[in-house]
Amino acid sequence: MKKIAVVLSGCGFKDGAEITESVSTLIALGQCQADYQCFAPDKTFESIDHSNGEPSGIRNILSEAARIARGNVKKLSDLNVKNYEAVIFPGGFGAALHLCSWAKQGANCEVLPDVVRIISEFHSASKPIGAICIAPVLVAKILGDQGVTVTIGDDSETAQEIEKTGALHETCPVTDYVTDRQHKVVTTPAYMYDQAKPSQVFQGIHGLIREVVEMA
Amino acid sequence: MKKIAVVLSGCGFKDGAEITESVSTLIALGQCQADYQCFAPDKTFESIDHSNGEPSGIRNILSEAARIARGNVKKLSDLNVKNYEAVIFPGGFGAALHLCSWAKQGANCEVLPDVVRIISEFHSASKPIGAICIAPVLVAKILGDQGVTVTIGDDSETAQEIEKTGALHETCPVTDYVTDRQHKVVTTPAYMYDQAKPSQVFQGIHGLIREVVEMA
Repeated sequence: MKKIAVVLSGCGFKDGAEITESVSTLIALGQCQADYQCFAPDKTFESIDHSNGEPSGIRNILSEAARIARGNVKKLSDLNVKNYEAVIFPGGFGAALHLCSWAKQGANCEVLPDVVRIISEFHSASKPIGAICIAPVLVAKILGDQGVTVTIGDDSETAQEIEKTGALHETCPVTDYVTDRQHKVVTTPAYMYDQAKPSQVFQGIHGLIREVVEMA
Repeated sequence: MKKIAVVLSGCGFKDGAEITESVSTLIALGQCQADYQCFAPDKTFESIDHSNGEPSGIRNILSEAARIARGNVKKLSDLNVKNYEAVIFPGGFGAALHLCSWAKQGANCEVLPDVVRIISEFHSASKPIGAICIAPVLVAKILGDQGVTVTIGDDSETAQEIEKTGALHETCPVTDYVTDRQHKVVTTPAYMYDQAKPSQVFQGIHGLIREVVEMA
């Protein structure tokens, strides 16, 4: 059974990993006969109350990701590329805020050193990388100079910012995904369409996961 | 399109709604062409760090449930049975801790007055009730004297406690569900099998949701 690494950035779309995207990833991996291990950075952040958008105190990314992973989440620094056939990055604002600084700096962002290492090493080993929602910006920032193709849906402002990295952007509906076969990168927009239904998000992610597991 | 109420008890299996069960419910509702509205009690609780099991401060059930519902969650007190065709209770320790006191008192528990009202009124109106994981204890406590049949899987200790309410218990695997046609109650064990995979939990919940939506 192929083993896939899943990188979470918390628990909740305003300050962490988007929950429906993360759970859809884990469900689809099982449906595609793959096993998984979740990882998250062990660092603190200022949380946001999801009922009113107000700051709600300091939390830890790893502890919050453990809510999605039912306690079974390892430190991102412990992710050894040799032990996994592929890696998936669900979206949520955490991906653009904790895994890199895209939320504040766009294409000029800095990326967490562990994320740079992980994406570079999976790519060098010719192992597939899946990225959901806003997480394709991580792949664009690191593999853009190699002309990787990604999608974040149909948001032209974000697509233009992505193309500043050298990456190419392809428009895509929520229920579909885009595959760059040369670079083994698969992306799907998910809640970049913020009015999407959970079942539509699941459909796009299921397609991405099936593709990633096949290529792994 | 049928509209279904979903009652969340937070966000995380140790102190709130089980996340995979909640998201599986929302995905399956869309796949079965139903619409939904999430609800949660507006009250505080002592949270648990899901990475180590330690207490981690006071949070609010409604604010945490909003992480799953992407902000669109209403107060449980505002759930008017007339506006919905059915109600679903995902599990997680929150259901046995915040929606009733089963976690501490078993069959002698008290149930949150809003939950008593909601289950009684859906049942009286002959509208279906779905309950997942440990949440069937809520239905057993309120409808046990009418001989309702539920499942919480194969945990004989909990099953015996449930039968003290007058309810009947039927053993069931994680991928299946139990329907009481007379009372229009559908239950599935989900993470009562704590080693289950997300894809297995989804399969059981998808079956429950399809049954509830058909009966609604």
